[in-house]
Amino acid sequence: MKVSELGEFGLIRLIHTSIARYEIPEQAPWRDVLVGIGDDAAAWQSDDGIQLATTDTLVQDIHFDLRTTDWKGLGWKALAVNLSDIAAMGGIPRYALLSLALPGELETEDISEFSDAMAQLAREFGVAIVGGNIAAAPNVVITVMIIGRSKGKMILKRSTASPGERIAITGYLGSSAAGLEMLRGKSVSDREGGRILRQAHLKPMPKIREGQILIQEGVRTAIDVSDGLIADLNHICELSKVNARIRMEQLPVHQVVRANFPNYEELALCGGEDYQILFTADEATIARVRLALDCPVTVIGDVTEEKLATRVTVVDSKGDVIPCPKGGWEHFKNGVLKTGFP
Amino acid sequence: MKVSELGEFGLIRLIHTSIARYEIPEQAPWRDVLVGIGDDAAAWQSDDGIQLATTDTLVQDIHFDLRTTDWKGLGWKALAVNLSDIAAMGGIPRYALLSLALPGELETEDISEFSDAMAQLAREFGVAIVGGNIAAAPNVVITVMIIGRSKGKMILKRSTASPGERIAITGYLGSSAAGLEMLRGKSVSDREGGRILRQAHLKPMPKIREGQILIQEGVRTAIDVSDGLIADLNHICELSKVNARIRMEQLPVHQVVRANFPNYEELALCGGEDYQILFTADEATIARVRLALDCPVTVIGDVTEEKLATRVTVVDSKGDVIPCPKGGWEHFKNGVLKTGFP
Repeated sequence: MKVSELGEFGLIRLIHTSIARYEIPEQAPWRDVLVGIGDDAAAWQSDDGIQLATTDTLVQDIHFDLRTTDWKGLGWKALAVNLSDIAAMGGIPRYALLSLALPGELETEDISEFSDAMAQLAREFGVAIVGGNIAAAPNVVITVMIIGRSKGKMILKRSTASPGERIAITGYLGSSAAGLEMLRGKSVSDREGGRILRQAHLKPMPKIREGQILIQEGVRTAIDVSDGLIADLNHICELSKVNARIRMEQLPVHQVVRANFPNYEELALCGGEDYQILFTADEATIARVRLALDCPVTVIGDVTEEKLATRVTVVDSKGDVIPCPKGGWEHFKNGVLKTGFP
Repeated sequence: MKVSELGEFGLIRLIHTSIARYEIPEQAPWRDVLVGIGDDAAAWQSDDGIQLATTDTLVQDIHFDLRTTDWKGLGWKALAVNLSDIAAMGGIPRYALLSLALPGELETEDISEFSDAMAQLAREFGVAIVGGNIAAAPNVVITVMIIGRSKGKMILKRSTASPGERIAITGYLGSSAAGLEMLRGKSVSDREGGRILRQAHLKPMPKIREGQILIQEGVRTAIDVSDGLIADLNHICELSKVNARIRMEQLPVHQVVRANFPNYEELALCGGEDYQILFTADEATIARVRLALDCPVTVIGDVTEEKLATRVTVVDSKGDVIPCPKGGWEHFKNGVLKTGFP
């Protein structure tokens, strides 16, 4: 079978199965693993608290297009998407490694701008970039790894959602995808709106502080929205063995997106790369979170019992099911660029 | 300027300079960094001892050729080269992440074999593979990251060599490069010899235990030989601000390589990928190391004061300088494949 037929998530399961056969669960370091393959970050217990590690890769012509790439944006985003995975665990990022595979004909000035932007964001979040690797390659592949730790004794996981909980999200959905459409030529009427969408797509701000506050207020289940609301909620449902029901009219869509993008519902459901935190909790907990956070916190649906093969259902204001346009980003199944830099 | 003009090590310096501008040395996590960019692995102080992290990437058509690749070998080697970096710090590897960028037309069976081989080696060295990332890409790029720790309070560094010390190496030099020549068609007279060279190139065994014993016996300076003896010794000289003198006739070259490869001196000096540990220490320390290790330990030269622009000098049995064929592997400067899998 080809990798493209199996798909990204099938491939992860296949690799996970291979690896699991060689583990020795009763011995360290396997014994100390709290969260292995399949969550936003790996987590293990150490004498120094819970340790976290995550990695994410940006591939030329899949995640970005060099003909239109701003290297500053690329440096920012390569680190930001990794920070977002630590945010989704409620953790503190601390150390980063950078592995760069790139063609020799690139300009060194571009790499300077890239490093500068990455280092600037790293400083903002108290992350020391301590090492990495450089290799020649026919096209650019950027891999960042972050090592962090939990603030207290808890972390946020994908596997702990329970039926009866509400589903909530920080910030807005669909702004990054709308920003991408705009950068590709779609006109946006007001200038300030355009700036907001550009920022949403090119300079997503990882929700590190927000993730830590979620834990502090009692939230246990979260994921960051990178592949799209439905796809990422699917990951929670799969690992928690639950279903989810989303109410379309409650999705927090920025007014600039509503006003300029007739397809705003699709952007909000499937757009991806918003790097907001999607979480589940009871109503009282969500009320506390709302008070503690500066950004909007919106309840968008409910966790239900695992009854349907379709894990995530979207309903309209009458409760009628809306057929979903598509499932979100999946590598090998989506042929076009995931994202774009101007 | 083009990246290819600056070269691999120039590019590392450029990135390092960018990043250093944004560090806050008196604050954590920067304050806790013991070894940053430029050594085999990064190291920092934690309440749980010294932590280590390293990453290494294998790029299709640079490090391997898929038309002739054995995926099992690739799985082994991708982890082994990272374990070797932890060995060169005298550390204990503990957790690994795997980032795979690959084309959808690959066979899933190949990825199974790859994962299996990697997991098998991981088990052998007590390493839990706890996460990673999958992305579609036009060609294969494999990045592995390892997080480990020191055994005691010391680690091996590149920056601590002193004039007057001897230079020593574990095992043999040039066997991996000879193995590559053999796999590309060069005939080797005896069958057992062929097996040894094949193994040296395709299944290098990381010197984890050896690194730990070096520390225990008092060694402080080491590097693993990945780019080639001269190139890697150059790294020690640069960071330690010393020169080095190597005695050609003392290089440990396996008799199969001597017997079958007229260019064996070049293979030993510049071949690379032997993943032996090159270290410096006084004679008494090296004598203790020799007693404690199972593998050969050979004194090959001396650390001298930093007087010459050419950091590493090779001399013959009369003490006359031998002109060096080339400096070892450097990305962007070497056009051909670094390695090959049959």
